Formats: sequence, C-alpha cells, structure tokens
Amino acid sequence: MNTNVKAYGAHAGDRPLEPMNIIRRVPGAHDVRIDIAYCGVCHSDIHQVRAEWAGTRFPCVPGHEIVGRVSAVGAQVSAFKAGDLVGVGCIVDSCKHCDDCAAGLENYCDHMVGTYNGPTPDAPGHTLGGYSQQIVAHERYVLRVRHPEAQLAAVAPLLCAGITTYSPLRYWNAGPGKKVGVVGIGGLGHMGIKLAHAMGAHVVAFTTSESKREDARTLGADEAVVSRNPAEMAAHAKSFDLILNTVAAPHNLDAFLALLKRDGTMTLVGAPSSPHPSPEVFSLIMKRRSLAGSMIGGIPETQEMLDFCAGHGIVADIELIRADAINDAYERMLKGDVKYRFVIDCASLAA
Amino acid sequence: MNTNVKAYGAHAGDRPLEPMNIIRRVPGAHDVRIDIAYCGVCHSDIHQVRAEWAGTRFPCVPGHEIVGRVSAVGAQVSAFKAGDLVGVGCIVDSCKHCDDCAAGLENYCDHMVGTYNGPTPDAPGHTLGGYSQQIVAHERYVLRVRHPEAQLAAVAPLLCAGITTYSPLRYWNAGPGKKVGVVGIGGLGHMGIKLAHAMGAHVVAFTTSESKREDARTLGADEAVVSRNPAEMAAHAKSFDLILNTVAAPHNLDAFLALLKRDGTMTLVGAPSSPHPSPEVFSLIMKRRSLAGSMIGGIPETQEMLDFCAGHGIVADIELIRADAINDAYERMLKGDVKYRFVIDCASLAA
Repeated sequence: MNTNVKAYGAHAGDRPLEPMNIIRRVPGAHDVRIDIAYCGVCHSDIHQVRAEWAGTRFPCVPGHEIVGRVSAVGAQVSAFKAGDLVGVGCIVDSCKHCDDCAAGLENYCDHMVGTYNGPTPDAPGHTLGGYSQQIVAHERYVLRVRHPEAQLAAVAPLLCAGITTYSPLRYWNAGPGKKVGVVGIGGLGHMGIKLAHAMGAHVVAFTTSESKREDARTLGADEAVVSRNPAEMAAHAKSFDLILNTVAAPHNLDAFLALLKRDGTMTLVGAPSSPHPSPEVFSLIMKRRSLAGSMIGGIPETQEMLDFCAGHGIVADIELIRADAINDAYERMLKGDVKYRFVIDCASLAA
Repeated sequence: MNTNVKAYGAHAGDRPLEPMNIIRRVPGAHDVRIDIAYCGVCHSDIHQVRAEWAGTRFPCVPGHEIVGRVSAVGAQVSAFKAGDLVGVGCIVDSCKHCDDCAAGLENYCDHMVGTYNGPTPDAPGHTLGGYSQQIVAHERYVLRVRHPEAQLAAVAPLLCAGITTYSPLRYWNAGPGKKVGVVGIGGLGHMGIKLAHAMGAHVVAFTTSESKREDARTLGADEAVVSRNPAEMAAHAKSFDLILNTVAAPHNLDAFLALLKRDGTMTLVGAPSSPHPSPEVFSLIMKRRSLAGSMIGGIPETQEMLDFCAGHGIVADIELIRADAINDAYERMLKGDVKYRFVIDCASLAA
C-alpha cells in the first residue's frame, strides 16, 4: 500500500514552501524505504523550487542530502535491513546499463533521475525529495552511513556538498605534494577545504571576505587569500595544480586561471544561472591549462567518500532547523549567512 | 663579424611589408647559422606585424616556420655541421633551467624568446624572423630535418602549424580507438587532420564550408561535418574523446563541447583577438568535460614531430610565393583563400 507522508514543498515558483502531503510507493523487490531523520539544504534546492532553472515541475519537494534509518526493504534486497543508517544523495535512478552506469558514474548517465524533479512513474509523475518523512529508493542508490549516529545530521550534507567536492578532488589527483585551491567558503567550499586537507594536499582557500580568512584556517586551509587583493593573488601566480571553484555567481575566471601552473586544471562545480565572463583564450593556451566541470559523483564513489569521511571524522558544519524555518533559511543562504549548511530536522515535520 | 642580410618586414603596424636589410650576429660557441631556404607564413605573423596583438616592436620581420641549410656552427656545436638540413620554429631561446625547460617544454618557459619580436641583446633589441636570408640560433632550438630535400618547402609549416597540432594530439592521447575532431580546415587544421589520421585516430573534420567537405576527406578525415548544419552536429553528440579547435575567430564553443563524451577535452590552439562567447558552465559540468589550451610544443617534441612526419611522408599543403608577394598573400589568408599555407621562397630575397 502506498504511504501518505508529510513533506514541505512549493506549489509554484513564486510561492513559499509550505506543508503538504505526498505519496511514497510500496517498496518494490529492489527498493529500500527510509525514514528520513535529516535533510540538508542545497543551493540547488532554491534554484529548482523557485523555477530559476528550466523545467521545474510542481508541486516541488526539494532535498537531496538525505540521511535516516531503513524501515523496510524489498524481497530482493540483501545489502540493507531495517534499522540500518543510510543516506540518499542526488540520484535515485539511472539506466543501469550505459557506459557511465557500468563505470559507476551514474551521475553522468543520460537517464540519471534526480532525487527531486526527475521523471518517475510514481505519483505525481516526478520525483519528490528529502524535505519529507520518508523516501523509497532502489537499493543501488542507497548509501551506507558508518559515522556515529550522534553525527547523523552533520552527515547529511556529505550526500551532495561532500561528493560534489570529493569527486573532482579525487579525479584530478588532490593529495600529498599537490597545491589545491578552493574558491568560495560556503556549503561546497567548506567541504572542499576539509576533504582536500584530509587527502594531504596543501590547501589554499579563496574568499572575497576578510572575515572568512580565519574560518578557512579553522576548516583546514593552510593559507587563505582574499581574492579582491591583487597582491595576495599575484603571490600565488602559476603555482596551483588544481583549483576547485565552488562559486556559482558569475565572476572573473581569468584571475584564477592565472594561478594555475603548467597543466593545471580549474574545475567548476557551481552552476551560475547566467554565464561567467568569457575567459581569455590566452589564459588556457599559455600554460596548457584546463577549465573543467564536474557534477556530483557516482554511487560507488559516494560510498567511498562517506567511508573516507567516517574514517577521518569529517562531517559538515551545520545549523539544524525545523522544516517550517525553511523559507527564512533560503533568505539567509542568499545572503551567505550560514556556516555552512542548513539541515532540516525531519522529525519537525510530524508536528 | 656581423652579417648584413636581406629581409622583408614592416616599419609600422599600418605599413605594408617591404624589403629591408638586417644584421645577424656572428655565431657564438653554441650557435648555428642557417641559410634560410623557405619560410612558412603563419596567421600570427599578420597579427604581430599589424600590431593587432600588444607589444609589437618595429621594424618587425615575421616568420617562424624556417627551413634551410647550416652554413656555419660555433666552436662548441657538435650536433650540427655545415650542409645539414635544419629548421627553426617559434622559439629561439628560453631560460634553460626552469621546470618547463627541464621538461623540454621550452614553449611554456616564462622567459621563452619568440623567433621574432622577442627580447635579445642583438640589434635592434628584438628578434627578427624568417622572412630573411639567414638566421643565427642557439643549437638547442635548431631541429634536424630528415625529409627528402625536394620536400623542404612543404616541411617549413611543420615548424609551427605542425607542432601546434601535434603536441595537443599527443598530450591528449589521440590514437587508435579514439575519436578526434578537428575544427577548421586551414593552416593548422589541415595539419591536425593529417597528423591525427597518421596517429590512428578516427578523425572528423568540422568546417563551415560545404566546399571543404571533400578536401577534408582528401587530407585524411574519416568524416567531414558542416558545423552550420544542426542535424549533422547532433549526430555526433557526446561522442568525441578530443576536439582540436584551430579556429581563431570568436565562435560558439558550446556547440562543440556538446559533442564531447564524458571526460572529453576540447583544446583551443587558435588565439582570437577578442574572446569567444562565454561557454555555458553546464556544458562542462554535465559530462566532466574540459576546455583547454595548448601553445606550440617543446623542442624535443618538435623533433619527434618532424621525425614522425618524415616517417609517415607528411608535409604541409603549400603555395610557394616570392617574398614580394607577401602583402597580397596576407590579404588572401584573411579571406581563407589558401590551401593551406603560403611559403616564401627565400631565394627570391636576393633578387
């Protein structure tokens, strides 16, 4: 029997989020039903629910940084059982047979189904996310959480902010002997700093705020640079192996490309709603530099990231909120007023 | 004693090229003096001599696709002797001790000295290029030519157009099993097609001209696509490992980025005088794609390229001209009216 659960979502792009009831399917043979404990709040949630990206379907229930406990499993599920601590990230389905899926890179599958706003035969015809009491997902897309339960709320953001930064750091070989920059100290950037540091890289954080300089050091950065200061920037010219750029607002990419050494890469993980000013071709040609992009990460790599974080005691820095505080939280996020991720206590949905 | 030789150059950015006399230094201990037989004509020559790029010093004698015969060597030179067939490309000096130089990537050395318009203690204080009867260069920057002498004129463009395309094809692993695109069928692009084909890649040429479709096949492309045709472009979506983009005119990069498969790279080797329209961040993020640049190639790799070409019977397709036809040749190049490289017969300078 389908389950009626409480959720928080919006009925239109220009409406605030409000309580609503949604339907979750009966777990199929390969499904896992999760009682959601916490759900992180990602900038993508705002873009999608406010219809700032194309194609938002309403009602829209955002949320793809989901952690909780298994409450039921389908007949064919052997990897999970009721009571297990688990997570669901940005992906709840994919074609399962293309080259990307075969490589465990379901995030690049042409038929990847997002945890919200993706196509599904379930009512209402598109997926509904983690600002809710329960979710049902195919076991392939369910991750095991090995952190202590007391850290569970702070684990939630690892499911998007964590893997979105972990995957490019691994792909472009962040580690000992490498100088890695992290641009922007927000939800993504603060995870990028923690992860790159734990991987053994020399980490330089870039921020536009003098006030975040000390925070960056606390998070694990070896150095912090205020990017508005040309002399500080010039001191790092041609020295980085990798720059992880988490800033979604359009900005001057050449200023950071100039900091890459020969064969260095700057990877964009923030998606602005309008393009960055066009980078100079000479910025790329002069030192054989690359400007790249990376999107979330695959399921096996997400598990690897969660285990890496559990092993290194890494969680996100969070501010726990009730579901009915979500509209205020969005306003604060747009002002950069959160250190560094809001997480919804989904128990508050029951009230 | 310094040598007075005939050359062709310009006294100002708004003046045509004209005959002039220039001075070449007496070969030092490590120098090689070359009697220039032929010099290819590169688009960079036009940009520099017309002061379309910053910092042109006059008089300006362009030319960095130089081939000829050694006529004298310094006391310490053992690798070359009078009579040898040799070439000089875009580089005549560098610091010789930085990481880039140590790696044989003198092209990325911060103190790389271009064959023309670079700093030098020689008169008149900046380097003068190959539109001349002789050049004197340090042996490190002199390449051996192993092609038959009858092909010498058509070897000249390998020194810039050849290495500029060979280096990124090698760096990004063009070869058997790889699908490689070459955008633009001009001086650079026609070499890119020949080289990628010889490396064993499946080569697809992109042109805006229906009329060049058959030429592309003749040059070695397995397929030719007219990039103005959306249906033809769509048929290649998400399929390329590497796209070598030789077009210097600003154009829509997203149309080509969309053709890269996961982890594919588009490398720019043309340098427009104004930026391309800004690429969409999603074009990079969606398949972990890279937009890169590459500039010429190092000296060891240039020798490797010349030997590869000699072994595969590869030369440029050229139109041989007298030096006094250079101003007309520039006008034709700006109209794309050359298949595919003008080469100056430097014997014509003596007349």
